[in-house]
Amino acid sequence: MAADAATRAAELSDAAIGGDRLALARLLTAVENRTQVAEAALRRLYPTAGQAHLVGITGPPGSGKSTLVAALIAEVRAAGRSVAVIAVDPSSPITGGALLGDRVRMQSYAGDGDVFIRSMASRGHAGGLAATSTAAAAVLDAAGFDLILIETVGTGQSEVEVAAAADTTVVLEAPEMGDEVQAIKAGLLEVADLVVVNKGDKPGAQRTAAQLRAMLVASAPRSDGDSRPRPKRPEVLITTAATGDGVPELLAALDRHRSVGRVGESSGARLARAEAQVWAIVADRLRARLHDSDHAAATEALLDEVAEHRLDPYTAADRLLEGSARD
Amino acid sequence: MAADAATRAAELSDAAIGGDRLALARLLTAVENRTQVAEAALRRLYPTAGQAHLVGITGPPGSGKSTLVAALIAEVRAAGRSVAVIAVDPSSPITGGALLGDRVRMQSYAGDGDVFIRSMASRGHAGGLAATSTAAAAVLDAAGFDLILIETVGTGQSEVEVAAAADTTVVLEAPEMGDEVQAIKAGLLEVADLVVVNKGDKPGAQRTAAQLRAMLVASAPRSDGDSRPRPKRPEVLITTAATGDGVPELLAALDRHRSVGRVGESSGARLARAEAQVWAIVADRLRARLHDSDHAAATEALLDEVAEHRLDPYTAADRLLEGSARD
Repeated sequence: MAADAATRAAELSDAAIGGDRLALARLLTAVENRTQVAEAALRRLYPTAGQAHLVGITGPPGSGKSTLVAALIAEVRAAGRSVAVIAVDPSSPITGGALLGDRVRMQSYAGDGDVFIRSMASRGHAGGLAATSTAAAAVLDAAGFDLILIETVGTGQSEVEVAAAADTTVVLEAPEMGDEVQAIKAGLLEVADLVVVNKGDKPGAQRTAAQLRAMLVASAPRSDGDSRPRPKRPEVLITTAATGDGVPELLAALDRHRSVGRVGESSGARLARAEAQVWAIVADRLRARLHDSDHAAATEALLDEVAEHRLDPYTAADRLLEGSARD
Repeated sequence: MAADAATRAAELSDAAIGGDRLALARLLTAVENRTQVAEAALRRLYPTAGQAHLVGITGPPGSGKSTLVAALIAEVRAAGRSVAVIAVDPSSPITGGALLGDRVRMQSYAGDGDVFIRSMASRGHAGGLAATSTAAAAVLDAAGFDLILIETVGTGQSEVEVAAAADTTVVLEAPEMGDEVQAIKAGLLEVADLVVVNKGDKPGAQRTAAQLRAMLVASAPRSDGDSRPRPKRPEVLITTAATGDGVPELLAALDRHRSVGRVGESSGARLARAEAQVWAIVADRLRARLHDSDHAAATEALLDEVAEHRLDPYTAADRLLEGSARD
């Protein structure tokens, strides 16, 4: 760890905790890029995090996630609480240009220090998207935000994992979506603590909500090894995010879910988040070691043999591990 | 490696290579579950793989991927070649129940030994979806299939990576999809070797194709660090998978892309696949070591401290690595 990285991290962390939003933004960029500054800052901030309520919001394309997030921000601010948003965009897996979409409307909060919105590309997180978003949430948590919303599209494995790792996971649906979307929905429902039928002013909203309630009665309790208790089946709410209808009830439901979790054992999600984060760092460390100047040539020669099918990947992996352990 | 796993792997591998489809299916199940049998079988089969043409097919929900795959199968079989399909479904991230959807129609190939279709859940691949699908493709490759199609939904990071890791990546579009889908498309196009506008009989298909061609002219050459040459910009084709229109032209374009890749350097994708696979095994090995009977208690205590915010994840990662290196 370079001393200047540690110094820079201390400056940025102290400024971010003190309310400097530019410093906070820079810190989050460091987290996304997994720099040494990010590591030093997280070491420093981590012990003070753990107070915020992390809420994952996910659902298929077109269900209105961004509009609902905007409506929730308004509701949370009306209640005098602070809120940060991490929006994992359906953006390029390669160049990572994050799209703004209808998030532009949120620029009306530009002068409000209690609202912070951050887009995060879904690509290129070596240790996994969940690890990066967890680290970003820890920074926002330490910076004192009451509520942290993590918005992801609900159609990719990594993206669903991100939302499922929150304290409370909201799955959004919209009435009358297509068949393929229905298929996606079945998987999503299993990670839901709350289900929201958005676009409640559209025909079919009540019917969709009734169908979902029936599905959730029929389905078994969560079978995912998640130790979080599911004291009762997920509530199904109807919102019209565009008008704000149902949004106060959604916020109340989020608060209820949190207090139930606190009384019971909400540590399952926290333990899973900790493991994802620690594991990503372990993997980073090991990968760096295999590609450092002492090992890079041997690593690349091995990978080339595998690519040419002259060596199987298990033997290659064993040789890499032996090599890295020999120093 | 238990001797019985090695024996079982040898039996299954030899049977699978000999044309026993039940043995092949069992081997693929072992690969999905990352068993010792899978490891032994891959060690055995890997050197004979490397002959098949791997084609990734991805696109947003509703673009007609499964229908196009069915049409391609018919075309490939008409040409007397064999084909295997790995369909990564938009299924549950938790229970992993893979959906059949319109794949049922493909049961008409049930008696055709030169067609093999396998669904693979997108959840629960510890080393990553790309590593599992690459291993599955290596098994199918060793079993002698000429063409291996890997179908994934094009809206998740892991899912797009799977398709992008193929020798040839086909991105599917449909005319007149919604705004959020357009956003997804921009990211997808960057991994495309071929772009297909499906549902060519719908109004707007020609316009969509023209727009795509214009976008692809405007966009810079691939900036993804992928060393595969892109000798010219991706071709844009129009198909109507439901009727088969344009499918012979698609197969011809796939063959052309492959021969160009062969003449040039197609090793970029192969090297990337090798690295993903080796890395997944390294991670598996390390994870197993951290959770084995000697280390499990210490590992869990550390993770608990991180979950409670009494310890930062970097210090925890360093302690885990020290611990695992001490034996």
